[in-house]
Amino acid sequence: MALIVQKYGGTSVANVECIKNVAQRVKQTWDMGTKVIVVVSARSGVTNELIGRAKELNPRPDSREMDLLMSVGEQETIALLSMALHALGVPATSRTGAQAGILTDDTHMRARIHSISGGDIVDQLDEGKVVIVAGFQGVSINGQVTTFGRGGSDLTAIALAGALKADSCQILTDVDGVYTADPRIVSDAKKIEEINYEEMLELASSGFKVMQSRAVEFAQKYSIPFEVRSSFNQKPGTIVKEETPMLEGIMVTGVALDRNQTRLTVTELPDKPGTAAEIFNILAENDIIVDMIVQNIGRGGVANISFTVSRDDADRAELGIRKHFSDRTGDDFVSQTEIAKLSVVGVGMRSQPGAAAKMFDSLAQANVNILMISTSEIKISAAIEPGQADDAVRALHDEFNLNQ
Amino acid sequence: MALIVQKYGGTSVANVECIKNVAQRVKQTWDMGTKVIVVVSARSGVTNELIGRAKELNPRPDSREMDLLMSVGEQETIALLSMALHALGVPATSRTGAQAGILTDDTHMRARIHSISGGDIVDQLDEGKVVIVAGFQGVSINGQVTTFGRGGSDLTAIALAGALKADSCQILTDVDGVYTADPRIVSDAKKIEEINYEEMLELASSGFKVMQSRAVEFAQKYSIPFEVRSSFNQKPGTIVKEETPMLEGIMVTGVALDRNQTRLTVTELPDKPGTAAEIFNILAENDIIVDMIVQNIGRGGVANISFTVSRDDADRAELGIRKHFSDRTGDDFVSQTEIAKLSVVGVGMRSQPGAAAKMFDSLAQANVNILMISTSEIKISAAIEPGQADDAVRALHDEFNLNQ
Repeated sequence: MALIVQKYGGTSVANVECIKNVAQRVKQTWDMGTKVIVVVSARSGVTNELIGRAKELNPRPDSREMDLLMSVGEQETIALLSMALHALGVPATSRTGAQAGILTDDTHMRARIHSISGGDIVDQLDEGKVVIVAGFQGVSINGQVTTFGRGGSDLTAIALAGALKADSCQILTDVDGVYTADPRIVSDAKKIEEINYEEMLELASSGFKVMQSRAVEFAQKYSIPFEVRSSFNQKPGTIVKEETPMLEGIMVTGVALDRNQTRLTVTELPDKPGTAAEIFNILAENDIIVDMIVQNIGRGGVANISFTVSRDDADRAELGIRKHFSDRTGDDFVSQTEIAKLSVVGVGMRSQPGAAAKMFDSLAQANVNILMISTSEIKISAAIEPGQADDAVRALHDEFNLNQ
Repeated sequence: MALIVQKYGGTSVANVECIKNVAQRVKQTWDMGTKVIVVVSARSGVTNELIGRAKELNPRPDSREMDLLMSVGEQETIALLSMALHALGVPATSRTGAQAGILTDDTHMRARIHSISGGDIVDQLDEGKVVIVAGFQGVSINGQVTTFGRGGSDLTAIALAGALKADSCQILTDVDGVYTADPRIVSDAKKIEEINYEEMLELASSGFKVMQSRAVEFAQKYSIPFEVRSSFNQKPGTIVKEETPMLEGIMVTGVALDRNQTRLTVTELPDKPGTAAEIFNILAENDIIVDMIVQNIGRGGVANISFTVSRDDADRAELGIRKHFSDRTGDDFVSQTEIAKLSVVGVGMRSQPGAAAKMFDSLAQANVNILMISTSEIKISAAIEPGQADDAVRALHDEFNLNQ
């Protein structure tokens, strides 16, 4: 009998009605004679409510206590979903992360999975029960509740699918799958049937919101295939796996756009070794991830550094830098510019040169000004002005024949 | 160093402000150089919210899933209280029932405690930390979350105090202690300094709302003394323990009133063996607790039975009986009357006769009509009309000289 792992996110279980819908959908799968493990997140909003209460009591709450606090969100949904399945006549039983034997290290709030025993899940499945597992959480070797950070429920689903050798792992979400570009921008964007881990990772870090990199990395490391599909319809989604057919001439798989980026520019820094390191140390200390970086030498032996960060981190980054260089008080010493990051991703770039040339030609023809560039082996990203982003996406989608 | 267990109920941790107050209060105790274990309930309202959601999904939710669901309430408050203590500079760490090693049987929603290992609580206390334990919950031998039912957090506090040989166990609540009568009715009611378990139990079953019988029974069984006191002031409360000084001539310790009672009368039942048993079986099947019972033979070999139940159970009791005797459809076959139950309690009754005579004399002089009577070794209860209840309490309080 086939074993399937299904993961439903917070918006899919937001309230009693949503939970009933998920129960119906799980029942459909179970009715087909499949063994089913369901991984669920907290009801959307609950985690933020809990964090809000915690911050009112303590602006810097202890991470161990935060984990204990946040894990209640998923514990609530697993029990409720189990009851909803019972009401439909489906035998079901719920398991917390600890009960599912999801053992982690003790890095609270971003714990790493050590091993998954599964607890009694296999027995419960053999008895014909649907097993519902709390996403996002585990237990450390010394018995403490741990959580995995953002995207943690995807990680739970993928890791469980790997540990229990599931035949399929479905990440059910509010989109039909992974598209060649955002269908809201590009009307003839196509759903990608299969994509490999590397491309999925590059898309995840390029503004593709459906999954966090972490879960994809885990899937890649242990070669666990999964499928991103809609929780609202029964259409096949996008399979993410190790090897996908290499089609001759396909250089680019998708175009991604991240509108939530800010470029910071720090001007007139002394052009001496270590200046860049100082700045990026400040950012690292503040847990701020930097994406594109450009350094250039200005007049008179001074340097300018520009880099992009997530817009949510921009003010914190600026503040940290101003504090560090407290003798520099000029307004224009640090400046922010909102940008959009445009990326083309494709493993085909490895074997076929010319993707960058094609991309920049296409953007030039569309009169799109490129502010910064960064590349990886299978990705080229360009920072552009936000107002030109939609046109740029459409131009690249056409240029690389992604509608075919 | 002395060890103290403090228990705070749901209204004491209802919101962020309340939790801050509890943290301040715990800090005061900790500042005195005492080891402190704090047991907390869920924020008031949370448990009912969770139950509400469960019932929307399933009118008869599975008790195992209910336990997993309801235990999140306390898990939230322990984490929040811990953070609040950190904000005051007090080292604190929280433990779920399972982490505190509170092992139970697997009777979900009304589990019984098997043993308490305490987990690492003693080590944490030795390191100078305040340990916060989730009330109301434990873990069964096969790793399932269990809860104790109503009054469960008191039980956790008392059981922990017993297992860890605490020097003191304080049940902190919204009243100053146990009074000779409700001070809202009797202006010169006195706070009782010490009371023994038996009397406390009789008071708990006689309308005294502060504690459930179950926790008191546990304290009695294992001889664990505790104190009921206010969470709003520092006045000493009432100590509940095994032996209290027997004062010559003190027959009655307190007068209790329960306004939440209904008398059901079932008329013209066949006067044959087993009729009463039938009725009380129906009630038992519906989990309805019966208090006072009177049976009498009517004319023509038929019997009438009257009994009292909690008002919340009255309609369910009537329905059950009407269903069972479905051939009896007359309106007056079963009738309900709201009553108040008045009780005098005192271990002194054992050695001194005449308490009943005194009580009934006093009520007769006050023109209070007695509808039903029941007695135990140390308690006399009378069902009376609710409108006469306050006068009756005052009359008995005077009669037994409880203001002295």
